[in-house]
Amino acid sequence: MNAEIVSVGTELLLGQIIDTDAVFLAKMLSRLGINIHHRATVGDNPERIKDTLRLAFSRADLVITVGGLGPTQDDLTKEMVADVLGDTFVEDAAHVQWLRDRMHLRGWQNLPPSFWKQALVPAHGGGLPNPNGTALGALFEMGGKIAICLPGPPNELVPMAESSVEPYLRERTSGQRSVLQSRILRIVGLGESLVEERVGDLMQSDNPTVAPYAKTGEVHLRITARAPSPEEADALIAPREAALRERLGDVIYGVDDETLESVVVGMLTLMGRSIALAESCTGGLIAKRLTDVPDASRVFGLGLVTYSNEAKTKFLGVSEQIIGRVGAVSPETARAMAVGARAAGNTDFGLSVTGIAGPGGGSEAKPVGTVHIGLAWDGGVLSEHHHLLGSRADIAYRSSQNALALVRRFLLDPEAVQAGAGDAYESLLRH
Amino acid sequence: MNAEIVSVGTELLLGQIIDTDAVFLAKMLSRLGINIHHRATVGDNPERIKDTLRLAFSRADLVITVGGLGPTQDDLTKEMVADVLGDTFVEDAAHVQWLRDRMHLRGWQNLPPSFWKQALVPAHGGGLPNPNGTALGALFEMGGKIAICLPGPPNELVPMAESSVEPYLRERTSGQRSVLQSRILRIVGLGESLVEERVGDLMQSDNPTVAPYAKTGEVHLRITARAPSPEEADALIAPREAALRERLGDVIYGVDDETLESVVVGMLTLMGRSIALAESCTGGLIAKRLTDVPDASRVFGLGLVTYSNEAKTKFLGVSEQIIGRVGAVSPETARAMAVGARAAGNTDFGLSVTGIAGPGGGSEAKPVGTVHIGLAWDGGVLSEHHHLLGSRADIAYRSSQNALALVRRFLLDPEAVQAGAGDAYESLLRH
Repeated sequence: MNAEIVSVGTELLLGQIIDTDAVFLAKMLSRLGINIHHRATVGDNPERIKDTLRLAFSRADLVITVGGLGPTQDDLTKEMVADVLGDTFVEDAAHVQWLRDRMHLRGWQNLPPSFWKQALVPAHGGGLPNPNGTALGALFEMGGKIAICLPGPPNELVPMAESSVEPYLRERTSGQRSVLQSRILRIVGLGESLVEERVGDLMQSDNPTVAPYAKTGEVHLRITARAPSPEEADALIAPREAALRERLGDVIYGVDDETLESVVVGMLTLMGRSIALAESCTGGLIAKRLTDVPDASRVFGLGLVTYSNEAKTKFLGVSEQIIGRVGAVSPETARAMAVGARAAGNTDFGLSVTGIAGPGGGSEAKPVGTVHIGLAWDGGVLSEHHHLLGSRADIAYRSSQNALALVRRFLLDPEAVQAGAGDAYESLLRH
Repeated sequence: MNAEIVSVGTELLLGQIIDTDAVFLAKMLSRLGINIHHRATVGDNPERIKDTLRLAFSRADLVITVGGLGPTQDDLTKEMVADVLGDTFVEDAAHVQWLRDRMHLRGWQNLPPSFWKQALVPAHGGGLPNPNGTALGALFEMGGKIAICLPGPPNELVPMAESSVEPYLRERTSGQRSVLQSRILRIVGLGESLVEERVGDLMQSDNPTVAPYAKTGEVHLRITARAPSPEEADALIAPREAALRERLGDVIYGVDDETLESVVVGMLTLMGRSIALAESCTGGLIAKRLTDVPDASRVFGLGLVTYSNEAKTKFLGVSEQIIGRVGAVSPETARAMAVGARAAGNTDFGLSVTGIAGPGGGSEAKPVGTVHIGLAWDGGVLSEHHHLLGSRADIAYRSSQNALALVRRFLLDPEAVQAGAGDAYESLLRH
């Protein structure tokens, strides 16, 4: 079965509200294994609504409309669907009575005649109950096509979709139903082009499909399979995931909704290790990300946002000589900050970030985007140098991403990280 | 001029991400007085993309596409637009050089051939600079039609739309235009219902319109006017804004895109005052918000994320007796943290937050959402008690909002805040 979603409302076209309904319905249709190839948004204009519906019915068996079911003259959707499909309406007597009861109960008076059209239901099809509103939904079944009309307010649409639409569509598609199942592999430390270079050949198939998505500071690979049952879809996904993992290895840090901060907090918790932070250009973002994870307090007790040089000296013991000689944005300062954070927090690890997030403050030698990350542990300290791209917020976020990724790599294989750090590694004994 | 927005991406059709880009562009087009009658979403399929583009060009003079500009084989949009309009591409030599430079700087190797298509620009039209990404945008001008292709990541699209697309369209539409102009009044410390209760009668007109929007921790009132010129629209907005300000007073903290943190940093900068932070349940969020403001370093040098009791004692001097007697989440601890932050940072103000963000950790006496905020200055310290609603992230955000709002109110009128604080005010001499 092919479906399209048509959202009706000038306020959607003008960008005054975000169409979360369409997103909700798209997820529901995917879950049911119903294809969606197009989605459309159209304003409150009768001819344009009809044109959009005609096009949708020419391509799809099922059209779900959102919005335009209310009691005002602007609310046209149900009428336009009937016009396009050639159906008529009958009055739902029980709903008319229910509206009358509400009217008396609430003291509504002088209702416009259009109020009562909320109780009209398709002659071929029927009404869909709306527990949270006055307008019934509408189901049309005409000439091999199905149309479902739902109201726009999400607190009305969502319960109607769950209690009426999903069971109805499940029934209609049973026997011929296939489900669409996805798994997202989350990658840090490798850009989209390089990911595609390494696994491009594993992205060529139709079922499962594999598609890359570039996010700020990470890349997602989405594996999607279509199969008669969730179990069979999983059985298609599993070998592809294994092949991707074999190629990509450790750069895959998590799956689906896992975040890098939750993975790092989880690893530290399992290993019984603790961490303290010294942040400059990230300004508290890493602390914020760690404490977004429930129970982060088991591994994280202290973060220092040392924005000024004085604070770096006073709380982290970064010597004024270092700052004077090589500057606050330097590998040496990053390492001294990490050592200082570890000592201040009395923790297993100290993690630091210092850099230039912009928009001002850059120079030829240290352009905006120059970032140094330091990591101290019980036998040494190392630093990493990054050139990051983007706005002030992007640079801060990418810095936090690189810092958390460094901790994760170190927890996985400390020797490899130390070996790779080269000159930027110091034994703590030298401090 | 008529425009349509075409969003490209299977992940949009499946409801895996919300299309905030289309909303942003719709607002921009409205502001320019450009009509939008349709919006469409289509998956990463060449034929369907072309069909959708053909339909859009049959109805509109301007088509803006979102997504599908990246370096991978899935990224097809620019090519499909060229196909439909009959244009070809030329290489932007400067961008090729820039990509090469980045490649060397970052150590990228073995990039796939498709990487370089990011530097191809339309023969009839040109490239649009992308300060935050590697893919150029594309502008096509062919046979009376305009197409503008923008990348999907909002951190790339938004600055490109603002710096290139909006000025270009403003130029193209000048002379024949009626503009829609909006002004947003940002309110903190008063909920949506109370705002509506106070100014409901000022929200009844057609031009300008006034509409309320509830956001996490604040309310926005949007005044929108339509007029032949921006000046005439402003002349409709100004008296309505004055009337709203007269009713609402100080709860309006800013306008349009101003944030509470930028207002607070701006006030502190003007007054030559500095602030230090001690955060517990906000976990660095307030530091992050302050340092999101460029030049925050003039007023902010030190933030302490004291998540553990030990850190509160060691770095803020909160006595173990206080924590033992009344707990870490208490007015007394909040006040001691604020005093400690002020002393540690050697600043004019110390601001603290301690609370229970959940999901765990609540009790009958101190349920999830219990938050205490402390503010210390050169003559005293006070605390505020809040009961906040929502998820862990909501409670942290609302806490940060209340804390920044407290600083703002104190800077506006210290006597009024102290008088309102009652028992929660202490002279610093008692410490």
